Amino acid sequence: MLGGMGPDATVDFMAKVIALTPAAGDQDHIRMLVDHNPRVPDRQAAILAGGENPGPVLAAMAARLEASGADFLVIPCNTAHVFQDDILAATRIPLVSIIDASVEAAETEAPDASAIGLLATSGCLQAGIYQQALEAAGRTSILPTAGELDDLMALIKSIKAGRTDARAATAMGGLAKALVARGAQAIIAGCTEIPLVLAGAALDMPLISSTDALAARTVGLALGEIPLPNRQP
Amino acid sequence: MLGGMGPDATVDFMAKVIALTPAAGDQDHIRMLVDHNPRVPDRQAAILAGGENPGPVLAAMAARLEASGADFLVIPCNTAHVFQDDILAATRIPLVSIIDASVEAAETEAPDASAIGLLATSGCLQAGIYQQALEAAGRTSILPTAGELDDLMALIKSIKAGRTDARAATAMGGLAKALVARGAQAIIAGCTEIPLVLAGAALDMPLISSTDALAARTVGLALGEIPLPNRQP
Repeated sequence: MLGGMGPDATVDFMAKVIALTPAAGDQDHIRMLVDHNPRVPDRQAAILAGGENPGPVLAAMAARLEASGADFLVIPCNTAHVFQDDILAATRIPLVSIIDASVEAAETEAPDASAIGLLATSGCLQAGIYQQALEAAGRTSILPTAGELDDLMALIKSIKAGRTDARAATAMGGLAKALVARGAQAIIAGCTEIPLVLAGAALDMPLISSTDALAARTVGLALGEIPLPNRQP
Repeated sequence: MLGGMGPDATVDFMAKVIALTPAAGDQDHIRMLVDHNPRVPDRQAAILAGGENPGPVLAAMAARLEASGADFLVIPCNTAHVFQDDILAATRIPLVSIIDASVEAAETEAPDASAIGLLATSGCLQAGIYQQALEAAGRTSILPTAGELDDLMALIKSIKAGRTDARAATAMGGLAKALVARGAQAIIAGCTEIPLVLAGAALDMPLISSTDALAARTVGLALGEIPLPNRQP
């Protein structure tokens, strides 16, 4: 696991993997090799403002996890997937994409939704990785307006600083509802900070948590319920 | 970090490290290399019943963390410290002991307490690592009776299986109060499952959480506020 982006989101992801694992005792649980590295260069700054490229750092982390015996890689951070080509170039084990897991969870949880609202970071949306995956799945993306995106980024920043109170939840719910008002029939919480404040019950609409989608896939793969994708078929 | 013993306790420890780190954004947080390995052979079975020795597995985990660049080692599991000599023999970086951190936290938080109640696993108490550390600090240990220890072990097992409800908290509080009734002037929660159900506020007595004590020390060491102990002076 390439973790720490952000720290609380990684812990939330690990807790969900543990909760989703059927276990009567310690030894039934899944081994996770975690490089919890919050000091990866800022993904937003790299995508939007020419800041330091986090790709080489992510690639080095991934290579070390592979050398330590990892069978596959996961990253509980959506935006970091913008740099997945650097990781793939440095490793030979599968990288299980949170983007693909979330889009496929949307197909399962909201099979009739043709328009999917995306709550994700500016950098993630600018790179278009979610929009492309949804288009490949025959879905339309409903995006935040520029003003909503500013609010979302401010909210994510405050969640990263530990503010996960009811006010943050209400503000996040408001951003989701704005997408619904513009036609979204389901929402993907495509940033792992979002599920720290927003749960599905808060909306009348299917809400796909990228954290939950990746955790479910991780457990399925680790327990052999889902076959591991082959990097070199 | 040698983690996964148990899984929820490791996540709790990581969350406490994150919460104790002064940070305005991701990049201010501490990097943690975590081998979250719940499949380490059962520590209780090894100490009490001649089961497989977890020492070699812990040593191999520690050596790999050192090779991956770790500056020091922590284990958010008290009983695993019974096998610390195996880890020390396989590595050259410091192992920051949860036992020492907890006994020193007791000296700070309960300076006048001469008798310290110990809630810890059968294996941990049988090995005597807490009793020795407390004796070296000039304190007496107040231990659970055989019956209380049976109850404590059953409770820890149910916490590991995810039962962290109010009933578990009440039962754990009862075990702490039994030690107080026999003269304990402070309690060390010397098993990282215990703070998952029991908080200090539940007692009229100082309650030292071994998880919190190790988390505070880890943050202090990682931020350079506490000098790193030297393995080879």
